[in-house]
Amino acid sequence: MVTRGAATQDDVRRHNLARLLRHLHERGATSRSELVAFSGLNRSTVGVLVSELAEINLVFEGAGSAGQVGRPSLMVQPVAESAIVVAFEIRVERTIVALVGLGGAVLLRKEQRHRRNSYTPEAAVRNIVSLTAQVLAKAPDRAAWVGVGVSVPGIVDHTDGRVMLAPNLGWVDAPLGDLVRDALMAEFDVCPSVVVNNDADLGAIAEYARGVGIGARNLIYVSGEVGIGGGIIIDGRVMMGAGGYGGEIGHMVVNPDGVTCRCGARGCWETEIGRDAVVREAGLGGEQVEVEDVIAAAEAGSRRAEEAIQAVGEWLGIGLANLVNLFNPEVIVLGGHLRLLLPRVSAQVARRIHFALPAAREQVRVEVPALRGDSTLLGAAETAFDALLSDPIAVFEDSPHAVAS
Amino acid sequence: MVTRGAATQDDVRRHNLARLLRHLHERGATSRSELVAFSGLNRSTVGVLVSELAEINLVFEGAGSAGQVGRPSLMVQPVAESAIVVAFEIRVERTIVALVGLGGAVLLRKEQRHRRNSYTPEAAVRNIVSLTAQVLAKAPDRAAWVGVGVSVPGIVDHTDGRVMLAPNLGWVDAPLGDLVRDALMAEFDVCPSVVVNNDADLGAIAEYARGVGIGARNLIYVSGEVGIGGGIIIDGRVMMGAGGYGGEIGHMVVNPDGVTCRCGARGCWETEIGRDAVVREAGLGGEQVEVEDVIAAAEAGSRRAEEAIQAVGEWLGIGLANLVNLFNPEVIVLGGHLRLLLPRVSAQVARRIHFALPAAREQVRVEVPALRGDSTLLGAAETAFDALLSDPIAVFEDSPHAVAS
Repeated sequence: MVTRGAATQDDVRRHNLARLLRHLHERGATSRSELVAFSGLNRSTVGVLVSELAEINLVFEGAGSAGQVGRPSLMVQPVAESAIVVAFEIRVERTIVALVGLGGAVLLRKEQRHRRNSYTPEAAVRNIVSLTAQVLAKAPDRAAWVGVGVSVPGIVDHTDGRVMLAPNLGWVDAPLGDLVRDALMAEFDVCPSVVVNNDADLGAIAEYARGVGIGARNLIYVSGEVGIGGGIIIDGRVMMGAGGYGGEIGHMVVNPDGVTCRCGARGCWETEIGRDAVVREAGLGGEQVEVEDVIAAAEAGSRRAEEAIQAVGEWLGIGLANLVNLFNPEVIVLGGHLRLLLPRVSAQVARRIHFALPAAREQVRVEVPALRGDSTLLGAAETAFDALLSDPIAVFEDSPHAVAS
Repeated sequence: MVTRGAATQDDVRRHNLARLLRHLHERGATSRSELVAFSGLNRSTVGVLVSELAEINLVFEGAGSAGQVGRPSLMVQPVAESAIVVAFEIRVERTIVALVGLGGAVLLRKEQRHRRNSYTPEAAVRNIVSLTAQVLAKAPDRAAWVGVGVSVPGIVDHTDGRVMLAPNLGWVDAPLGDLVRDALMAEFDVCPSVVVNNDADLGAIAEYARGVGIGARNLIYVSGEVGIGGGIIIDGRVMMGAGGYGGEIGHMVVNPDGVTCRCGARGCWETEIGRDAVVREAGLGGEQVEVEDVIAAAEAGSRRAEEAIQAVGEWLGIGLANLVNLFNPEVIVLGGHLRLLLPRVSAQVARRIHFALPAAREQVRVEVPALRGDSTLLGAAETAFDALLSDPIAVFEDSPHAVAS
């Protein structure tokens, strides 16, 4: 939509439909009065817009509880079965897929393991096609398939879905977005919007919209897998930087005398708190060893495992204090294996964050994800809904071909 | 201006006047055709708006060179003498004042030294009043005094000008904005808008608008005085964080085994590259010793001074690599004493930045300020013009009392 200056009536109508639908998608059942208050539109305009969304079956009105005393009021609710997306989280050793309905309901979720170090972009695309077929076969009748979202642990040009670098997958300059689009089109003859994003950015987006970040404007999601990534939301917007490479918090040097990182620098935060560091320090090398195993060993009395966890806790706290001083966020969310470690190292983390400047540290909460292990996956679903939520009419009326089953 | 939904015709006119005036203020002489292209408005609307600005004497049209071959075209130009601001930069050991005209012309500039550790907010306010009287006495006839901007090396609530903490001045929770407003009102019976901001944020704003950041969207200004501050512009907006405390890059821990910082942590970037660190490492202690003296000593053959400079260069590079990985900016500007050091340590800086991730480091330039030592001062002037540039009609027609001489 290219408009400069005055918008047409139709632009305004589409914009308002999009605002209402996004609110319903993110917040769930909402009374008409709340929609009036939220949107600043008058009651009759809201009525017309809700009817229009109901006509194409994206929302329905029914009795719901607004948490108030008295008779239940009529609530506008998103129809989970009306529009669906397929979300993928590509990790170093597994791919996770989810079928997610409007409103964020996870209708189906499954995981598939693959071998580390041999998962090429082409293999990933084959998996994506096959998993898409599997989950679409279970999709609700008449659901419109409106998007595909893919999470990659790497640096992604989110405008076209090109993976510039995913070091722990060994991918360099892979046009994943185009490969997925072409393959889905070849398989299904239709293909809705396909978006590819960095895993930590997606974790941040999901926790901001639906998790521990609700109500905050500034949030950092620290993804802990083999590498350490950062998704940074500043005043409600994902920080991209000049070329989309911002947020590489794993390569913040915190220990110049430390271990040499894959990136060539010494003492990157990732070399001190990444998954491999935990396993290495605990003396439990091997591809199949997980942080869960280190925690189990510590709980079984292994002193070395316990010391490894505590050492990681110190470095975790030092890096978090840096993030507090640099970004002054309301919330820092620790994902991946850091989510599992936090309860065991909260004392060290608190002690180290206490070295951050008082004003900033008093405003920050360090949290585990409300969406547990699925922040990134659900973030991919959120971005897959973006096309629909930006202009529901365009997706529904102009692209009837994007409807599955 | 509280409007929700449709704007009135008058809102639109004021908004467009503000856009044109800001463009002329930041870019200088501009042809009508360029204003048409920049604004997206049609030629006749631009004509009406330019006439309106010319009527209140903020701009004039005259022959100018657009850098093209052929006859000189008519250029719209800001009138420097029509509207003026008074800008202050409060440093640890001196206060700098400038009288700045519309378009950014510095009409007058002077410095006044004060004793470190005994400069209270009240003493600063007395100085501000007295310096304001001195520079306004030299202001052009009929110039409208439209703002006062103050830079403070500390954490500022920019909404009301309260200085939360300025550690190197020893200020805690000082309502500087209110104190300045009250004192100016008592002295002059009138007082235009008064804005107080963090020094590094102002350096960033000035270099972004008028310096090495022109054309960039992401810029970091590193202020080097006694402390190290950061002004961070992300996608065109100053990063504030939850409470305005973001950008405290001086307290990023880079050397956990290093010197204890005033903040209580060890190895903050500030303890490795701050002005006191340079002087200390060079073995030239004392309040009056400046980084210039260390450089002079190195040039005179002092090995210790040279080694101090080189050591600072290494730490400077380590921290800059972190900023590149975290923020992926197009430009990092080194202000204060770092501006003086950069030419002598550019090799170390380049070598350390080479450890940043390739994609991000290839996009960054590390620069000295185009505005030399006055980025912060001129940033204060920019923010002082904000009220005028946001709504010239309101300031000029509704507040005729804010006119000096």
